Formats: sequence, structure tokens, C-alpha cells
Amino acid sequence: MRDFLPEDVRRRAHVIGIITRVYERYGFEPLETPAVENIDTLLGKYGEEGNQLIFKILKRGEHEASGQADLALRYDLTVPLARVIAHHQSDLPRLFKRYQIQPVWRADRPARGRFREFYQCDVDALGSTSPLVEAEVCAAVAEALVELGFTDFRIRLNHRQLLTALLNAFGIEAALHGGALVAIDKLDKIGVEGVRQEFEQRGITSAKAPALLSIFSLARQPDAFASINRDALDDLGQAALANLQAIVDLAKGTAAEQRLMLDPSLARGLSYYTGAIMEISVADLAGSLGGGGRYDNLVGMFLGQSIPACGFSLGLERILVVMAERGMFPSSVGTTPADVMMVVFDPKDLDSAMRVAGLLRRAGLRVLTYPEPDKIGKQIKYADSRKIPYVAILGSDEITAGTVTVKDLAGKTQQTYAQASAGAAILEELKRRG
Amino acid sequence: MRDFLPEDVRRRAHVIGIITRVYERYGFEPLETPAVENIDTLLGKYGEEGNQLIFKILKRGEHEASGQADLALRYDLTVPLARVIAHHQSDLPRLFKRYQIQPVWRADRPARGRFREFYQCDVDALGSTSPLVEAEVCAAVAEALVELGFTDFRIRLNHRQLLTALLNAFGIEAALHGGALVAIDKLDKIGVEGVRQEFEQRGITSAKAPALLSIFSLARQPDAFASINRDALDDLGQAALANLQAIVDLAKGTAAEQRLMLDPSLARGLSYYTGAIMEISVADLAGSLGGGGRYDNLVGMFLGQSIPACGFSLGLERILVVMAERGMFPSSVGTTPADVMMVVFDPKDLDSAMRVAGLLRRAGLRVLTYPEPDKIGKQIKYADSRKIPYVAILGSDEITAGTVTVKDLAGKTQQTYAQASAGAAILEELKRRG
Repeated sequence: MRDFLPEDVRRRAHVIGIITRVYERYGFEPLETPAVENIDTLLGKYGEEGNQLIFKILKRGEHEASGQADLALRYDLTVPLARVIAHHQSDLPRLFKRYQIQPVWRADRPARGRFREFYQCDVDALGSTSPLVEAEVCAAVAEALVELGFTDFRIRLNHRQLLTALLNAFGIEAALHGGALVAIDKLDKIGVEGVRQEFEQRGITSAKAPALLSIFSLARQPDAFASINRDALDDLGQAALANLQAIVDLAKGTAAEQRLMLDPSLARGLSYYTGAIMEISVADLAGSLGGGGRYDNLVGMFLGQSIPACGFSLGLERILVVMAERGMFPSSVGTTPADVMMVVFDPKDLDSAMRVAGLLRRAGLRVLTYPEPDKIGKQIKYADSRKIPYVAILGSDEITAGTVTVKDLAGKTQQTYAQASAGAAILEELKRRG
Repeated sequence: MRDFLPEDVRRRAHVIGIITRVYERYGFEPLETPAVENIDTLLGKYGEEGNQLIFKILKRGEHEASGQADLALRYDLTVPLARVIAHHQSDLPRLFKRYQIQPVWRADRPARGRFREFYQCDVDALGSTSPLVEAEVCAAVAEALVELGFTDFRIRLNHRQLLTALLNAFGIEAALHGGALVAIDKLDKIGVEGVRQEFEQRGITSAKAPALLSIFSLARQPDAFASINRDALDDLGQAALANLQAIVDLAKGTAAEQRLMLDPSLARGLSYYTGAIMEISVADLAGSLGGGGRYDNLVGMFLGQSIPACGFSLGLERILVVMAERGMFPSSVGTTPADVMMVVFDPKDLDSAMRVAGLLRRAGLRVLTYPEPDKIGKQIKYADSRKIPYVAILGSDEITAGTVTVKDLAGKTQQTYAQASAGAAILEELKRRG
């Protein structure tokens, strides 16, 4: 886990600001949940490996000695959403679109762009099975990435029921489907030959398995889907194909249109998906910038009544890593704490410095007041080292005359203003420079 | 711990936005730290009661069964700041002003405006002992409260060394000072008679104790300070009085000027304060909206080298409780997910709805697309229930003509626009309404 120093926070705020603005444009509403959930809410929702990676909190009071845990840190934003839907059903609209940008915690080994505490930026739409939901979720995420400056991402798209139909069509029995999906999910990391070996280890010995793997060997190529023999698919598989086509059609004209790519090898790790699944990748990052899909049964685990749902989660840290490496942050993401720093000749004049700082702040400027009785040169050197563009100098002459001398540290020019009008003048100059 | 539904999040974002803007105006820079700290960082910093209230996280892996905890949830934002200063010293300026707005967790019994997860909004300035720091911290906090709409708050101000000098002057031996401060800190809750009894229980039997208590009985009255016999104070006490006077003088002309009130009974619970201490109260809330003070030795516990520091923490939940009760949220804190909802006659026209929604979004509007093939009346009723001001209706006539009919749900009027110009027209109308 990491500290975020000022420059880090400003960059994160820049990204979160853009993502929030785009999500709201699509009618998603903000939701936040506590960092801590009851442990029973989380256990059993993320598979065996997930259970291991949940941070568990000791029960308070007399049980502390026993090592009993009753609480746990949020592991993702989807399970808490399902709990919220069940818990607050009467306070929420029957069609509910929410976004949620909060940290989650996993007791995982850290890697590049992967941390034990990381932020997810989720959108989810509840209450509708329409493919419009998938199309809008993809459009919103793609638009956010475009506004952040990404030009080269792909949204891989597949369908859980199409995967099931393919496994059926190639003679893999239902009991082995879970294991087959786990193996297929690793295709990026271990290649087709690796998947073949894992199939064998998992007892998947269908004579048709090599033919299935040949489809996956075309993964991420435009014609991978064309190589599927549609007539061999069962009804659910046919419906899945139609659903995918509807999503692609509805995404036309949105930011997702040029980004969507049907990919029969996309499996997604989590077990709760029931329909379309999506994942976003860029060339220079192993793993994904985010992913999502439809999960029509998860809310039912909390509510006892199914509510259809579909969502997408962007990983903030991954986005920040790629943006930093590519130099994608605009200069408006500031690096300085202030527009002006007050420089004071004599400690007895700190009251005048406070007063003039107040005038500058009321004009809309960010102002730092140097608090120590250091030499002027040291004060100005400090302002320079902090990249503060202007210093406002207050000597006894200025105080007597009701003026202030403003020095432009980059241009090395200076000008004296009436104290009351200095703020507006500096603001004007800052705007002129952009 | 609580979920924050959309209206809650919007209100919180409103308050955090104003506080952030004011803090930045004073040159404070953003810092964020992880929710989880090493348990040793936190233990022993908050007193015995604090230790009990820290949420402890089970060590991962083989130690999980033993109940051993190696991590803990952040308990406040001050101790993590001190750790950051020590850990990142070479990356931070020698004068460092930071703000931090993040949740903290305490395994406490919940009460009105008090939760197990709550946000603190902290400002701290490191590296200077100047009273300008205290004055600016008070000014920033007061300005934030004024911009939030508070008109009746008080900043109580006292000094730890003045308290010590008073205890000395009234014959209370040094070993009993800690207990005396704990008792004085409860004055608001238990009254002067309660403090007297607690003095007795703690073995504070000085013959002059009643005279000391008579000063506290004037607490929160303008002349409480005047009743202190300055000549009886030791040098540190005299210096503390001079320091308080300097803070009050420097705060003149700032938002804090009319709010500051010297109060010799203010003690503050935390043990790490070394100089001036402050607390903000409003009439209709028991307890405080926030507090702070100078703590020149805390960073040294991590760094082995003292760095002077002074800060203030506002409690977000307390502020929200009072603002909600007093109806202080402006109407600009929205209650609707969208400016316009797309209404669709025929499911086959969802693609046209997506296209027009895209046009409206590009014009800058927040747009919800109704995804289900429900009757028009049901769709409009949904928009009305969500307080969405406009619906954009797309029937086959409109699609053929390239138009869209926009209905104002409050005014019950409607108008047909070319699809390309509808967005600008709605935006204009929304601005006109304010």
C-alpha cells in the first residue's frame, strides 16, 4: 500500500474527475459503501482464491484474544452493490444506474500497477436485461478513456452462454466447464499449448478439444468469431450470439463502436457472470485496464429475488501507470501549492502579510504565506523550488504606501500594485499565460 | 457504518468541494495515505482508550489461525501524516502544508453524528513555530465553515503550557497534571462540580484547587481570561499567553477574527499537543465540529528529529448532520440522475434512442436512456418519479423526420426540435431556470 503525495493526488483527482463527469453524463448516480463489510457478506462470493485474499478484521472486545474475525475489508465494489440493492430496495428506483469510485483491498502479491489497496471506478445498471445496458456501459467506459486521452484500447466482448454452448458443442461435460473456463481465462498468459496442457490436467479429454482450442488460437483476430460453426450451437448459444450482435449494433455511433472486438476466448475469472462479458486492454500493459459483464443472479443471493444487473469496472491504478509512462497528464494538473507566495522583510509585519494574503485569496488566488523570519533570498528560493510563479513582497515602504511588489519568478520582472488591485492583476496575468 | 445513497454522496461532495477549495486557497496541498497502517505505527499514540478502539487486521497466511494482527485501520489522519513526514522526508519541502480528507475508523459505540467510519478534513502545517501557522489554520477552517453557510460557530482557543502553568500556580503537582487535564476536558459534560469530584477521586487535593475551578466556572465567557492572575504564572505560562495574543492579533481581518474565544478550560483529549489548542463548537451540537492544535514532538517519534507542526481537523459527519437539520444544502446539490430521459415507443428504435442520447450528451447534458419496452405512460411516470425535468420522445414520425419531441414534465409543455439542435435548446432552458 502506498502514500499519495500531492502530485499523485492531483493526478488521481484529474482522472477521477473526468471519469465521474462521463459517468454522470450517462445518468449513473454516485454511491459509496463502507470500507468494512460483515465477513459473511464477502466469503464465498469470489471463489476459493478470493476467500484467501480477503483482509479479515478481528472482532472487538473479549473475542479479540480468540482471533475471531467478524468484519472484512471490501474486496470489490460489485458484491457491496448487491448487498445495498437488497438492503435499501425500498429507497432505490427499480431501474438504478450507479457509479462508485472507491478503494478495495486484496491481500495479494503486489506487481506492476497492482497494489494491495487500489481504486475501482465502477458503473452498474440494475433492473433491465436490455442489451442497451451493455452498450451504454461499454460506451461510458470507452468515452471516459477517450477523454483521458487513450486512443489505442480494445474492448474484448464475449458471452458466458456462448462459452457454455461451445464447451457443450465440443463434447466437454458440464461438470468440467468451471475448470475449462479457468484454463481458458489464462490463455493470454500461458498460450494455447498451456491451455491444452491444463485441459489435460483437469481431465478434459474430449476428442473435439483440439478443434475447440483452434478457435481460441484465433483469439483477438477479427475472424475468430467467424470460425465458429453457429449451427452446432444449442439454443442458449444462438441467443448469446444474437445478444452480442445487438450490443455491437447499439454501440454504433458511441465511443465504443471502433473499440469492440468479439473474442471467443475471453472468459473472465469471476464466477458470478451470466451473460455478456467485457475486458479492456491496451498494447503496453499485460492484464487489463478493466472489465465487466452481466450478472443476473448475484443480487438474488442477498435479496431472495433476482434483479438483472450489468456493470463495468475500470482500474484506476492501471490507468495511472499507463498515463504516467506515456506522459498523458496535461499541464493543468498542477505541480505547485500556490499562485503567489507572500515574502516578508520583518517578522513584525506578518500581520500585514496576513492582511494582503487575505486580499489575494478573496480575489481567487491560492496564496502561501512564508511564516519564518528568514532572509529574503531564502524565502524567494523556497518559492522557486516549489514552482510558485509569483512572490508578493511586502517591505516597510510598501506597507506605508499601501502597495505590494509582485515579482514574476520565471520572467524575472516585477511590478508594484495597490494592495487592493494586486489580486486581479495577478489573476489576469495567470489567465493570459494559460 | 453506513451506505451513502446518491443524495448522501452529492451532499458530501458539495461539502468536501467547498472545504477543498478553501484549503487550497491557503496553499495546503493534497495528501492521501492508505486505509491500513502497520499496527505498531498506531499503537501507543492515542492513549489506552485509543488502543482499544483501533480496528486490527489479521496477519495473512499461516498466522491467520493464531489470531495475530499485524495491520490496523487508520484511526486519525495526524499519526499517518507524522509517519509520511518521516518516511518521505527527502521528497517533501521543509515547509509543508497539507490537507487530507479521508475516512478513519474507530470501534466505538455509535451516537448522533458519530459513526465507526467517519471522514476527517484535516489541515496541517509542518516546519514552522510561527503563530502565523495557528492563525492561518484557524482562518482556513473558519472560512470553510462560513462558505458552507455557518454563521454561529465559535473557535475556542487555549494553550497547553498555559494549562500547565495554571496547574502549577494552583499547587497541583506535575505527576497529577495528566489526570487533571482529563477531568478538565470533561467540563462541558459534567460541569464544574463534576470536575471538582473527579479532582478529588484523582487525589488532587491542593488547597488552591477551588480557586482554579472558579476560573473554569467562567469558561466560555469573555472575561474568563481576564480573571487569570498573570503574575502568578511561570515563564512558560507567560510565553503561552503572549503566543495566544499573537495568534489572535494575526487572525484579525480573517474569517476567524470574530470567532476566536480564549477559553482557559479547553483541554483537548489527545496527549500529543504541546502548544495552542483549538476547538470549534456550534450551539445545537453537543461536542465539537472539529479541533486541533500544535504538536511539536509527534513527528519526532517517527523521525528521531523534531519537526514543529500544527493542524486542525473538521469532522465531516458532524457538519453534515447540522447542515441537514438546518436545511443548509443549496438546490444546486442535485437530486436527479439526469437532465433528460429518452422515451422510446418501439424497442426496435433503441438504436435511434442511443444515437440521439449521444447527441444530447455531446451537448453537455446528463441523459438517461429508458432501456425497457414499457408503455410510454410508465416511462414518463418513471422520469417524473426521478425528478428528471425533461423527456425526449422518439416515435417513428420523429425518427423519419430527424426530429425529437422534448416534453417539460413540470410545465407540461412540449416542443419538437431537429435532433442536432435539441441539446443546445434544452441546455439553454435549464440555464434560464437556474
